Amino acid sequence: MKYTSIKEAMSKGKGKVAVRGWIHRERGSNKIKFIVLRDSSQVIQIVFPRDKFEKQWDEIDKLQVEASIIVEGSIKKDKRAPTGYEISASKVEVVGKSDKFPINKDLNEELLGDRRHLWIRSRKMAAIMKIRSTVMQSFRDYFREKGFWEFQGPILILGGAEEGPTLFEVKYFDRKMYLAQTWQLYAEAAMYGLEKIYGIGPTFRAEKSKTSRHLTEFWMAEMEVAWCDLSELIDYAEEMTKYIIKKVLEKHKEELEILERDVKKLIPSTKKKFPRITYDEALKILDKGGMKIKWGKDLRTVEEEKLMEGYDTPVFVTHYPREVMAFYKPKDPKNPRTALCFDMLGPEGNGELIGGSQRDIDIKEMEKALKAKGENLKDYKYYLEISKYGAIPHAGYGLGPERLIKWICGLDNVKDTIGFPRTMTRYYP
Amino acid sequence: MKYTSIKEAMSKGKGKVAVRGWIHRERGSNKIKFIVLRDSSQVIQIVFPRDKFEKQWDEIDKLQVEASIIVEGSIKKDKRAPTGYEISASKVEVVGKSDKFPINKDLNEELLGDRRHLWIRSRKMAAIMKIRSTVMQSFRDYFREKGFWEFQGPILILGGAEEGPTLFEVKYFDRKMYLAQTWQLYAEAAMYGLEKIYGIGPTFRAEKSKTSRHLTEFWMAEMEVAWCDLSELIDYAEEMTKYIIKKVLEKHKEELEILERDVKKLIPSTKKKFPRITYDEALKILDKGGMKIKWGKDLRTVEEEKLMEGYDTPVFVTHYPREVMAFYKPKDPKNPRTALCFDMLGPEGNGELIGGSQRDIDIKEMEKALKAKGENLKDYKYYLEISKYGAIPHAGYGLGPERLIKWICGLDNVKDTIGFPRTMTRYYP
Repeated sequence: MKYTSIKEAMSKGKGKVAVRGWIHRERGSNKIKFIVLRDSSQVIQIVFPRDKFEKQWDEIDKLQVEASIIVEGSIKKDKRAPTGYEISASKVEVVGKSDKFPINKDLNEELLGDRRHLWIRSRKMAAIMKIRSTVMQSFRDYFREKGFWEFQGPILILGGAEEGPTLFEVKYFDRKMYLAQTWQLYAEAAMYGLEKIYGIGPTFRAEKSKTSRHLTEFWMAEMEVAWCDLSELIDYAEEMTKYIIKKVLEKHKEELEILERDVKKLIPSTKKKFPRITYDEALKILDKGGMKIKWGKDLRTVEEEKLMEGYDTPVFVTHYPREVMAFYKPKDPKNPRTALCFDMLGPEGNGELIGGSQRDIDIKEMEKALKAKGENLKDYKYYLEISKYGAIPHAGYGLGPERLIKWICGLDNVKDTIGFPRTMTRYYP
Repeated sequence: MKYTSIKEAMSKGKGKVAVRGWIHRERGSNKIKFIVLRDSSQVIQIVFPRDKFEKQWDEIDKLQVEASIIVEGSIKKDKRAPTGYEISASKVEVVGKSDKFPINKDLNEELLGDRRHLWIRSRKMAAIMKIRSTVMQSFRDYFREKGFWEFQGPILILGGAEEGPTLFEVKYFDRKMYLAQTWQLYAEAAMYGLEKIYGIGPTFRAEKSKTSRHLTEFWMAEMEVAWCDLSELIDYAEEMTKYIIKKVLEKHKEELEILERDVKKLIPSTKKKFPRITYDEALKILDKGGMKIKWGKDLRTVEEEKLMEGYDTPVFVTHYPREVMAFYKPKDPKNPRTALCFDMLGPEGNGELIGGSQRDIDIKEMEKALKAKGENLKDYKYYLEISKYGAIPHAGYGLGPERLIKWICGLDNVKDTIGFPRTMTRYYP
């Protein structure tokens, strides 16, 4: 018989089916055994009446959670069954027995972390991983449909990233190299040949902060585009975010149910225009809310959260003070104290999801900014050279997929959005 | 006026157009200037008669290669022009001047490497990067169409990869971690929840070998699938390879022309079934060709090349001696000295493109193999544990996209298939 997924068997709805998977739950008596079988698509109840399986009864009776089996039987609707269908088994083969599965509802986060290699097969983790897959691919689909090319930057770099102290050092034969924190500087070089590019790659920050929003290894979904200004860049960010959320809502009704996500909270972001406010306006809003921020300071998490209280969609905050921004974010000619940049803040306390800017092409300005930050110009030699040969206005941004997934799935911690999270204290398995 | 790409302007074919890009070539006299303009889509000849541009003549006359300009004018067919069309300019704006571009035809590989941040905008590199983009995305499209989910494994691992001596060490706060060489061990854990998965991520090997096929940082396109045996696995590998090559041939006629690739050499691989031979058969073929290999030795590059002389498509070599294979490749029950594994070798001297196998689920066998290789069982604790809970037959493979791109593009060296190559001696820019 041809095997189908449990979901396909359910959509068939009646007649003979053959399915295979892992035991999600089991209970029974001396006369009858009920097994809830899990595969990657769904779970379904299977009934084994003892009189039909006398010879195999001992084997069936001993089956533990997570054992793998192959089952043939007849499927029919049954309101009492967990997912509305039941298979009455006529044949079973035990493929892989299971030891007592070391995960139960009472495990704390730390123990679930230690057993991540087993916890990852849970329905909750599988639901998140499926949504993650759709988020990643929808990011790429969006840009592909807009005529962008995929591009990968190098991961091993000699130095010259944004934040020295958070770089991880790699022993590279007889020298030191570092793990890159963005593709951007290299992407800008490639932009001069391909014009419109995007890419998703791993990113590393030696973050000591133990917050629910930080990992030491995470992924960045980045884009870079020729002949683009700040306002067009923000258009891309807004349209892309809507595109990704819509795709997840379309494809993942069941997964969002497993996660008990209140999807109504995502709907405004698929329909309403995201507000765009300047840093100056943000300060006024915070002031009214009782938070006085000195002009020139970057916004901290607590301030971002306060600011977002009045919004049910992401908000773009633009024109941050140039001094606290990276050297490649150019002055706004209309207000040189500010930079042509934005952060997209997420609702429901999700903070910065995207950061982007126009890119400076004024080599002298960049050198000045680098020196002011105490950086070594030598590390940026190749990057500064790019602008010597037909520089053009261009812009780009980076999206943190883990943070976006955390928001979409309504999770407490960014750790659950990635297969095997890495933090200062979590590095195994 | 609305800007279009040069390609769009050419497909319009007549009337007013506005394009922008970089100067690819320039020549002229006191009376007229010819510029070949490049953007990411194409190149086109633009004519500036002095009498129309008297006021800007000095500026136009001084334009150097790679300066960026915006041009309006009338386009028409012209057989003498390099790409069959010519724009007669009516308006020009110089966006970014250019210093003398430090790349010319006489540069050797080493200097081109030093100037990679500029060389990457060349038509040759842009053509390769576009094909790379299509290869990467076609890999994902193929598996997405088959119902697979995208999955990312961790990059930072505690140890326990295939080849200790080629691991790069990372200073991870107060301990050592390593850069992963495959997602596989983690993907197998995730397979128990998602069943069918694929992913593309960076991979690192501290390779001292300076061959045309080795990088220290490259990408791996991997898949892992539940309930799959060796023969079905090879079916995936063959169908996927054909899928990717067909997509490149469909979309990249122009790029393959720029690369002067003889596309006829790729056609057999889109049509013919790829031969499947065992290691034992390979040894017989080599013997006939005058190469005696002792049974039990892995095939070296020179032997792979010899073996492939008679083929114009990739060839699958299966059932290598188990002893020289990784610990997770299971014994063939019919011939326990061999493993249920394959390599897909590319034609035209391109060597191993894909390596894959069924996965062992016999914990004792794996422990024995690990010990025989002098590995520390502790490093594999999490991995060996996975098989304790409902193990199932499964299989997977890894494709080296850079090697596939090298073959498809007909390149001499794998270095040109990646934006910023890394080798023992090349780490900048």
